[in-house]
Amino acid sequence: MRLRNKPWASEFIADHPEVIIPDPEQHKGQWQQVFGNTNPLHIEVGTGKGQFITGMALQNPNINYIGIELYDSVIVCALENAIEAKSPANLRLLKVNGADLNKYFAKNDVSRVYLNFSDPWPKVRHAKRRLTHEGFLKTYEDVLVDEGEIHFKTDNRGLFEYSLTSISAYGMLLTYVSLDLHANMPEDNIMTEYEEKFSAKGQPIYRLEAKFQLK
Amino acid sequence: MRLRNKPWASEFIADHPEVIIPDPEQHKGQWQQVFGNTNPLHIEVGTGKGQFITGMALQNPNINYIGIELYDSVIVCALENAIEAKSPANLRLLKVNGADLNKYFAKNDVSRVYLNFSDPWPKVRHAKRRLTHEGFLKTYEDVLVDEGEIHFKTDNRGLFEYSLTSISAYGMLLTYVSLDLHANMPEDNIMTEYEEKFSAKGQPIYRLEAKFQLK
Repeated sequence: MRLRNKPWASEFIADHPEVIIPDPEQHKGQWQQVFGNTNPLHIEVGTGKGQFITGMALQNPNINYIGIELYDSVIVCALENAIEAKSPANLRLLKVNGADLNKYFAKNDVSRVYLNFSDPWPKVRHAKRRLTHEGFLKTYEDVLVDEGEIHFKTDNRGLFEYSLTSISAYGMLLTYVSLDLHANMPEDNIMTEYEEKFSAKGQPIYRLEAKFQLK
Repeated sequence: MRLRNKPWASEFIADHPEVIIPDPEQHKGQWQQVFGNTNPLHIEVGTGKGQFITGMALQNPNINYIGIELYDSVIVCALENAIEAKSPANLRLLKVNGADLNKYFAKNDVSRVYLNFSDPWPKVRHAKRRLTHEGFLKTYEDVLVDEGEIHFKTDNRGLFEYSLTSISAYGMLLTYVSLDLHANMPEDNIMTEYEEKFSAKGQPIYRLEAKFQLK
């Protein structure tokens, strides 16, 4: 994600606490109060410009969504997207680090984690930063319901290969794999900005679903 | 594999018992006697014309290899390949059905199973015939050592996707995945006939390694 300095970003973010939750740690274990219902909560780690999470929120009004993005200059795009979509009642954003999920969510708070076009961190010495590294999988498990799910899309072959073995080594169950998502496009697929760009070039989009298993 | 009638095939096969073992069930649990050593045994289910298994036998003299192929008209090509390679002492062929492996091999007889460019059986009602279906995985486990391995290559995307989830659902561990084998060709890769043909067309070759886990 290209980062441009946007000096107005922090003010714009502060002006929209109805979308970007200002004090997320206070809602740990109590997100149902934020949404005012008991619908399942799906989160996206690395929401980027927010096209996916906003599209999902509009498509599925009976599911609550939280998009997580660390950078001011990026999350403001997601905020703009949400405002353009009239700030759906089932959508929120958090400006926090995905590595700290368990500061903001308690066990069973989350039913599904979406990872879309995450940074591949191709160098081996950066493997720990990949969002499907064992350390992140542990964090997701900490906040997910039993047998909670990860849904992952990427155009990056190396990251997808790595993720398949990392997820298997963690003892998770692979329930779905597509090695060319757009060859048989699911009707309900919401494309991310990256997905539109890379698939337009004819690159295959890889996708998997996996779930944690009871121990 | 295209099957042509080859009336001379059965006679040619019978003339070469030093390569195509005529009575394999008699060696169940005793394959080390056939090879005259205690080296590990790797088998290929669906050997086809035999380029892979012959190449592997020549490349790795300290491993024993058995190629398994049901059809007379196909296994004669593998036999010709073996004879051209001067019938390596560490190579044998069996003209049997891969579904019946446990008639010919006892638990711990086999250290690794190779599956290369197996028939994809794309129709759902034929899923049981895919060589990575649960029923076949059970058969491989019956004859493999503990934590024995499967090495699988294919150009068929649907079969590879299916295999990843089937292998995971069986509780096996995925230890290696490549979604474009020839992009970073391993030095010791031996190509099958199909692999040469499909990779020449620019199609990606998929490959995985998986192992059974102790229960």
